[in-house]
Amino acid sequence: MDDLQDDRTSFSRRRFTTAAALTTPALLGLTAQTAAAAPAVAPGAPTAAPAAPRSTADWDTCLAVARALLLVDEDDRPLVPEYKRVLESGLPKGRGGTKEILVIGAGPAGLVAAWLLKRAGHRVTLIEANGNRVGGRIKTFRTGGHENAAQPFADPLQYAEAGAMRIPGSHPLVMQLIDQLGVKRRRFHLVDVDGEGKPVNNSWLYVNGVRMRRSAYARAPRRINRSFGVPRELWDTPSSTILRRALDPVRDEFSTVGADGKRVDKPMPERVRGWARVIQKYGDWSMFRFLTEEAGFDERTIDLVGTLENLTSRLPLSFVHSFISQSLISPDTEFWELVGGTAVLPDALLERVDDVLRLDRRATRIEYRDEDGPRVAVDTVSEGRDGKVERERFTGDLAIVTVPFSGLRQVQISPLMSYGKRRAVAELHYDSATKVLLEFSRRWWEFGEEEWRKELDAVRPGLYEQYRSGKAPDDGSLLGAHPSVPKGHISDAQRAHYAANRWDTREQPEAARVVGGGSVADNSNRFLIHPSHPVPGSDGGVVLASYSWADDASRWDSFDDDARYPHALRGLQQVYGQRVEVFYTGAGRTQSWLRDPYAYGEASVLLPGQHTELLQAIRSAEGPLHFAGDHTSVKPSWIEGALESGVRAALEAHRASAGA
Amino acid sequence: MDDLQDDRTSFSRRRFTTAAALTTPALLGLTAQTAAAAPAVAPGAPTAAPAAPRSTADWDTCLAVARALLLVDEDDRPLVPEYKRVLESGLPKGRGGTKEILVIGAGPAGLVAAWLLKRAGHRVTLIEANGNRVGGRIKTFRTGGHENAAQPFADPLQYAEAGAMRIPGSHPLVMQLIDQLGVKRRRFHLVDVDGEGKPVNNSWLYVNGVRMRRSAYARAPRRINRSFGVPRELWDTPSSTILRRALDPVRDEFSTVGADGKRVDKPMPERVRGWARVIQKYGDWSMFRFLTEEAGFDERTIDLVGTLENLTSRLPLSFVHSFISQSLISPDTEFWELVGGTAVLPDALLERVDDVLRLDRRATRIEYRDEDGPRVAVDTVSEGRDGKVERERFTGDLAIVTVPFSGLRQVQISPLMSYGKRRAVAELHYDSATKVLLEFSRRWWEFGEEEWRKELDAVRPGLYEQYRSGKAPDDGSLLGAHPSVPKGHISDAQRAHYAANRWDTREQPEAARVVGGGSVADNSNRFLIHPSHPVPGSDGGVVLASYSWADDASRWDSFDDDARYPHALRGLQQVYGQRVEVFYTGAGRTQSWLRDPYAYGEASVLLPGQHTELLQAIRSAEGPLHFAGDHTSVKPSWIEGALESGVRAALEAHRASAGA
Repeated sequence: MDDLQDDRTSFSRRRFTTAAALTTPALLGLTAQTAAAAPAVAPGAPTAAPAAPRSTADWDTCLAVARALLLVDEDDRPLVPEYKRVLESGLPKGRGGTKEILVIGAGPAGLVAAWLLKRAGHRVTLIEANGNRVGGRIKTFRTGGHENAAQPFADPLQYAEAGAMRIPGSHPLVMQLIDQLGVKRRRFHLVDVDGEGKPVNNSWLYVNGVRMRRSAYARAPRRINRSFGVPRELWDTPSSTILRRALDPVRDEFSTVGADGKRVDKPMPERVRGWARVIQKYGDWSMFRFLTEEAGFDERTIDLVGTLENLTSRLPLSFVHSFISQSLISPDTEFWELVGGTAVLPDALLERVDDVLRLDRRATRIEYRDEDGPRVAVDTVSEGRDGKVERERFTGDLAIVTVPFSGLRQVQISPLMSYGKRRAVAELHYDSATKVLLEFSRRWWEFGEEEWRKELDAVRPGLYEQYRSGKAPDDGSLLGAHPSVPKGHISDAQRAHYAANRWDTREQPEAARVVGGGSVADNSNRFLIHPSHPVPGSDGGVVLASYSWADDASRWDSFDDDARYPHALRGLQQVYGQRVEVFYTGAGRTQSWLRDPYAYGEASVLLPGQHTELLQAIRSAEGPLHFAGDHTSVKPSWIEGALESGVRAALEAHRASAGA
Repeated sequence: MDDLQDDRTSFSRRRFTTAAALTTPALLGLTAQTAAAAPAVAPGAPTAAPAAPRSTADWDTCLAVARALLLVDEDDRPLVPEYKRVLESGLPKGRGGTKEILVIGAGPAGLVAAWLLKRAGHRVTLIEANGNRVGGRIKTFRTGGHENAAQPFADPLQYAEAGAMRIPGSHPLVMQLIDQLGVKRRRFHLVDVDGEGKPVNNSWLYVNGVRMRRSAYARAPRRINRSFGVPRELWDTPSSTILRRALDPVRDEFSTVGADGKRVDKPMPERVRGWARVIQKYGDWSMFRFLTEEAGFDERTIDLVGTLENLTSRLPLSFVHSFISQSLISPDTEFWELVGGTAVLPDALLERVDDVLRLDRRATRIEYRDEDGPRVAVDTVSEGRDGKVERERFTGDLAIVTVPFSGLRQVQISPLMSYGKRRAVAELHYDSATKVLLEFSRRWWEFGEEEWRKELDAVRPGLYEQYRSGKAPDDGSLLGAHPSVPKGHISDAQRAHYAANRWDTREQPEAARVVGGGSVADNSNRFLIHPSHPVPGSDGGVVLASYSWADDASRWDSFDDDARYPHALRGLQQVYGQRVEVFYTGAGRTQSWLRDPYAYGEASVLLPGQHTELLQAIRSAEGPLHFAGDHTSVKPSWIEGALESGVRAALEAHRASAGA
């Protein structure tokens, strides 16, 4: 192998030099060379890359993934204190010069990086593809806002989340940023609560035609477990316990169970090694393989756990990814939401970078070189919604690229980046997620039977009993029939779709009577989430009627809105009963992140093997190009991952500026 | 387990009876029972399903999958002769009565089933969601046709395939049907050919910045293999050989290598057992796992083989699925195309069922019962493109449901079907595929340099040399500049996108000079396919500029057309050189099967474990509901699979009619 050169040092530089000379004469101030017609090879193209180790990753790679996950440096010292200090007090004072820095993408990573670099005195340009908003996959359907959004719901006060909606208290950077920026937060109830905010877990499970409250299932799971046909020895074990027992041996690698039964992380160097062992052992595994081969589950137990614990749609994806998520979203984790919607966080950041922001500029090409000081040029187009597509070219000394790799795949970057980076851009898997939100004029999920009787009989006397006995008409004539529903939002097409999809069984469950939390169904709605708090001044509320991922999400994406909302309502009725229809305002909102023109997916959700194969390449710089965004962290889809990456990339760029 | 009942016999009947009594009083002519409000369970819901075996499938299940793949009966006798006889001479003459049969979906499976049942004397109604066409995922972009399609390309004579485009000669049913219906076929050149139709394999490979003809790569693969960094011992082995060697031990299970080096299938009972062994061993495996654990490939070799042999985007999916496809699409397989486009096949079937077809009727609900003779009712909606959504209800004795399960997931079926069927509908994985087609006024891929010189200098003298030396303008001013290009198809927005995405390196490869076949690139275009034959009367042609699957396909789905076509052209130029732009007419067409409102994906592409877990449930009848469509075969995405299923379901329904 002696004739192979190191792709990341001398070789990549050599390749860069020759390719750049041919490709970017204007930018580089060089004379364009004449490309000979004969050779069927792009001049300057690499002809060899070093051989890689076997895909069973080596220990150092596993350690590196573990350190990225735990946010510790190479000596296993936590980086969180430094990152928090940077967020609070700014980047370290450097002796270096002021640079022109392009930040591509104004999601949370780009906003934070631009803000930090601007505070440090650099000349920053923040380029955003959207024509009217920043925030990336933080997006609130709301009236007004910095994006001047049109009123999304019948009640102008109502709002709901298209993207990020719950913030784990265990995420230190986002928690600090929220408080530092003076953004108001309050509890997000993952589990429904009573009047005093105490968890009661009374939301529904509705699977295989069996409806049961979560609290009842936790006490006596047999009816639901048998409906899946799980082996007899598991009839009386709740799905969360079955899953926990399967995962416990993995957790034992990096944590221990204390005397109080709670898990405590091992101290730091051992914690890193424990996670590295998990990654080495299971890095190439899918969740399906783990559940069959390691946990020994039969098909039916996988069905049960997959349905109730939200694993089914991601069974073929990385075990490590789902394992990390499972560790995070548990009833023990404290979650927070932002008052006014998650978009108030990008609002607050935007105030600080508004002067350097250029909206409506989608990056199409990136040219870079790192001789004579790094230089970058970025071509962009406008969305062209008025029929005219504008082009603009931006130049700088450095760039921070936060574009999801799903989108970056279509951006021409020259010269060719390193082999590993190119593979990462091409192969990093993005998963889809789709939300369907429905507005109601009353928060019926909080009702008891007495309130139901009062409100239904206000529509017309006797209606309460009609619904209870399954005799209310099912033709859609009662859609939005309650006097509180403003007229004009339910189209004839919605009514026709409602009737064509009308609920088949008319039995009426008891009132849900829950605040916050959510239900699980095996119908196509899958996950249904109630708002944790009322919107002041409004009697209504917006329910997340369907939240689904992967294949489940694709099933929603082909509907037009007139079909989608009645469909989502039907699925909601299967869980809560037909009568909820009287409060439906006809206003819904939907978000398919796969179809979003700049997200191309909910988030990177890695495939088996991708953590160890791609992670280092995902985040490493390519000359003057630095990479940020949640996909460069080991917490994709979380704001925390985006912030980690934004601070890291700002530090990298700042240090590179100082060093130049 | 003695208290568990068999889900598929007495139990399902009991459940059906009680549920149906509550849900379909109008249909059944029963008095609606009053649903009590108190119980939180849907009446009639199953409360138990039988425990399933471990996910490592049992031998009988593996045998069943193997038999379905090979189309043999339970005694391993081929079903093909009977199916061919049915296609040719009709269903067996029965003593049974004439039935009303609903066929849902007018793709090839539904068309064939409806035709056979009609010929046998049944009263058939064929219900199709599309408002203007039949054929499902057989769809030709063409002028006119039964769908009265608007002219898709600048030249009204041109056409191209949105879906099925190549028919393997090894598929007996579709080959017979084509000839039986008098549809004209000709060779589809998977590998490019010379003037005499002899394969020359001169299309391009363009990966890691290296461009090489396929024939040159086959002789001397080192430059490309080293660009991936494969281990030294594989430097001189072409990717197809590396993959073949890895798969050969699997093929040895059911075939042997003859004296001439060609594979011959083992005789029938042993062939079935061989395939069953493959399924038992690898049914739970992904392609990624096979390549790492069984083949022992390192990451770089997976990259090489994945890129050139089209495995990368499906690495996490079922090994068995890709293995079957790899066995089928090889240079040894003879492929055919239909003159006038694949849509002439559904055209010919449509002639035979036109009188029983109802277009613009999408199924939304299906109710069934099987007491007092089976009865089915299907609710439908129109597309409502004129703003008005119409509803219509169809009833019959039996139904054949050909809706892809991706779409069926949103169709309410009552009473609940069996546990296995419901899981299959919910979990069967569908993959995406996207095509981008570009029209050119000349078939430049067939040119030699002399033709290039003549045609380019016809644009303006000296242009040929300008392109060769990389000095032609790259601002889009030469888009469609050749006099043969009709004006008016290239919008200003397309020119702006072209310039913003302009090709970075200006080197000019030699003329491609190929007829048919296609190139492979590691840019986002991935697979590029040339037409096998000219369209009579036209000097131009439509190139499949990008054909991609899974994650690769999603990267295209978010563009609007004005951005998509210049993007696809840019990727094409990277492979063939900048100069092709002068023939671009500005007319493109694209098909994203994931976004198709009635397909929801290219085809079912199973996840690890799904062959053994789901196959039997996918195809089994539920009372009077029979299931067809390529997803019910073990050849999803192939017309052959659809036809197998259509004949099978027609036989089932016909026999059920006779038995009634």
